Amino acid sequence: MTTQTSTITPPDARVHALALERLDGLAKPLGALGRLEQVGAWLAACQGVCPPEPIEHVRAVVLAGDHGVTASGVSAYPSDVTAAMVHAFVGGDAGVSVLARQHGATVRVLDIGVAADLHGVPADVTVHKLTRSSGSIDVTDAISRDLAERAIAVGAEIADAEVDAGAQLLVLGDMGIGNTTPSSAIVAATLGLAPETVVGRGTGIDDGTHARKRDVLARALARACDDRGLIEDPVQRLTALGSADLAVGAGFLAQAARRGVPVLLDGVIACAEALVAADLAPGAQAWFLAGHRSTEPAQTHALDALGLEPLLDLGMRLGEGSGAMAAVPLVRSAALLLREMALLADLAAP
Amino acid sequence: MTTQTSTITPPDARVHALALERLDGLAKPLGALGRLEQVGAWLAACQGVCPPEPIEHVRAVVLAGDHGVTASGVSAYPSDVTAAMVHAFVGGDAGVSVLARQHGATVRVLDIGVAADLHGVPADVTVHKLTRSSGSIDVTDAISRDLAERAIAVGAEIADAEVDAGAQLLVLGDMGIGNTTPSSAIVAATLGLAPETVVGRGTGIDDGTHARKRDVLARALARACDDRGLIEDPVQRLTALGSADLAVGAGFLAQAARRGVPVLLDGVIACAEALVAADLAPGAQAWFLAGHRSTEPAQTHALDALGLEPLLDLGMRLGEGSGAMAAVPLVRSAALLLREMALLADLAAP
Repeated sequence: MTTQTSTITPPDARVHALALERLDGLAKPLGALGRLEQVGAWLAACQGVCPPEPIEHVRAVVLAGDHGVTASGVSAYPSDVTAAMVHAFVGGDAGVSVLARQHGATVRVLDIGVAADLHGVPADVTVHKLTRSSGSIDVTDAISRDLAERAIAVGAEIADAEVDAGAQLLVLGDMGIGNTTPSSAIVAATLGLAPETVVGRGTGIDDGTHARKRDVLARALARACDDRGLIEDPVQRLTALGSADLAVGAGFLAQAARRGVPVLLDGVIACAEALVAADLAPGAQAWFLAGHRSTEPAQTHALDALGLEPLLDLGMRLGEGSGAMAAVPLVRSAALLLREMALLADLAAP
Repeated sequence: MTTQTSTITPPDARVHALALERLDGLAKPLGALGRLEQVGAWLAACQGVCPPEPIEHVRAVVLAGDHGVTASGVSAYPSDVTAAMVHAFVGGDAGVSVLARQHGATVRVLDIGVAADLHGVPADVTVHKLTRSSGSIDVTDAISRDLAERAIAVGAEIADAEVDAGAQLLVLGDMGIGNTTPSSAIVAATLGLAPETVVGRGTGIDDGTHARKRDVLARALARACDDRGLIEDPVQRLTALGSADLAVGAGFLAQAARRGVPVLLDGVIACAEALVAADLAPGAQAWFLAGHRSTEPAQTHALDALGLEPLLDLGMRLGEGSGAMAAVPLVRSAALLLREMALLADLAAP
């Protein structure tokens, strides 16, 4: 089985131009809505209609998985927390669950590679479970190439289900102790960056753990990258340095772009997945918007490479898709302002 | 009639500490919600209860007025636009109206000092009309001291009405062609800043207009300030450099703080009013949160002096309270996360 790359049809440039024209005719100074003007025009182009429809159906998917590197002491938390948090998503009281409820969005949590076997969760949570944790990337590949390819296909299937259910905007979240290590490794191996450039504090690790995490990243990149610090093949990048859940995420994002549905990216995990998606499906990044700047340095490198600037910068580092979900009202505002504001031409004569 | 200053009771420090303790016990890494943790703890302290109640009742007031300096060519738009925009607020299709509808907030627009006599608007829009425009501050005082004092009292009355109507969070907006000039002047005269430090691009003025605006500011400050570039008396600051609508805003903010209701500040106009309010009612700023960083340099000086850091930085420069209104969902998120997230202690055993 091989994963085909395919070039993505971009959002509609003609509608984008129409939206910019409409924005200039609204009852406001030129450009006075700042970033919301760019987002509004992008939404119109994504939908292929100006003004854009209101963004009513926001659907989030949270991909849960454990990571073998956790055994090397790269996180402040044990792997057990991943399983416990899946229960919190099911119970509706994880952070992103609270935000999604506020914003009328759905959240689907999926066990892709949690180390434990989950009990007492609905069957659809585990229907796409592909593996239990991953290899510790400092010493071995994370997953097999076959699993990486199957996971990409599963990600596409999950995206299709969300799009078919009516998603106008997708949010991709993550849950997995240790997952900033493989994500940072993927960013480094996509862009040819040194380990010390991408290593971050994750959930809030101390200096000793930070040093260990940097060493793990250095060994992983030395083991798997070519002499330019790169892994050019995106599937090989997921195989060597990623995990099943990261591969599902990359497949999800590539398929969302193929289906022409915009995605609001969260932190370093989603941005690492987006970099891979942009290699699997060149041009996919035209369908992505960044919700929140995380505290992870690798995310900023990924955002720069993707040409994205986050809407929010609130110092959040929770994961779960929470930074993206916090930005959902701004995306909705951008569409509504473009739809509902008075036109200058219609202002009452004074 | 003299305006009394009075010291404000701050939000409850004991409840603030309880909220921080609760935040540390939620199912997330310590500090992982970033700014939303600080905002949540502040809301709890404002309400005097932890966890805080959901912020359901958000009420915005937009104060409209014209400014004599417009005749000196400081804006890209004529004063006529102020009256036309009041009609847009009444019609519900101004920018902030669209955002308020999205967020289930009310917007009350008030003609405080519009140059024109408004026709075809509900009577309550003009019930607090105090004057028609203001003196051009480069050559004369904006308003009389008596009018400044009456306007401060009217602002308090307006705040009382909103609080009595059940406001849990107030937003203060502005509408008035030319209003960044008096606002910037007030910021300068509060903090002893040079005109070139505070002059901004307002609605998006060209270089020639910008130079004229700087000159107008320089003449106004030279005319009205002491040799340190200050006007110490807050009422005199409003008299010499402000306007009736700015004085109403300052009175509104001081009274909101007296009533113990938090306010989400918008751009340079609200922040100038907040500086005056903090002199009228020392400590009032403890009840203020900044919604959005505007493109006006004077706003940043005011925010620094008030000890506030905005939630959003989207390059908006519309006024109307729109930047603050765009941030309302984040304030709500902060309260909801503190209320509804699982406690670590309650996480299901894996």
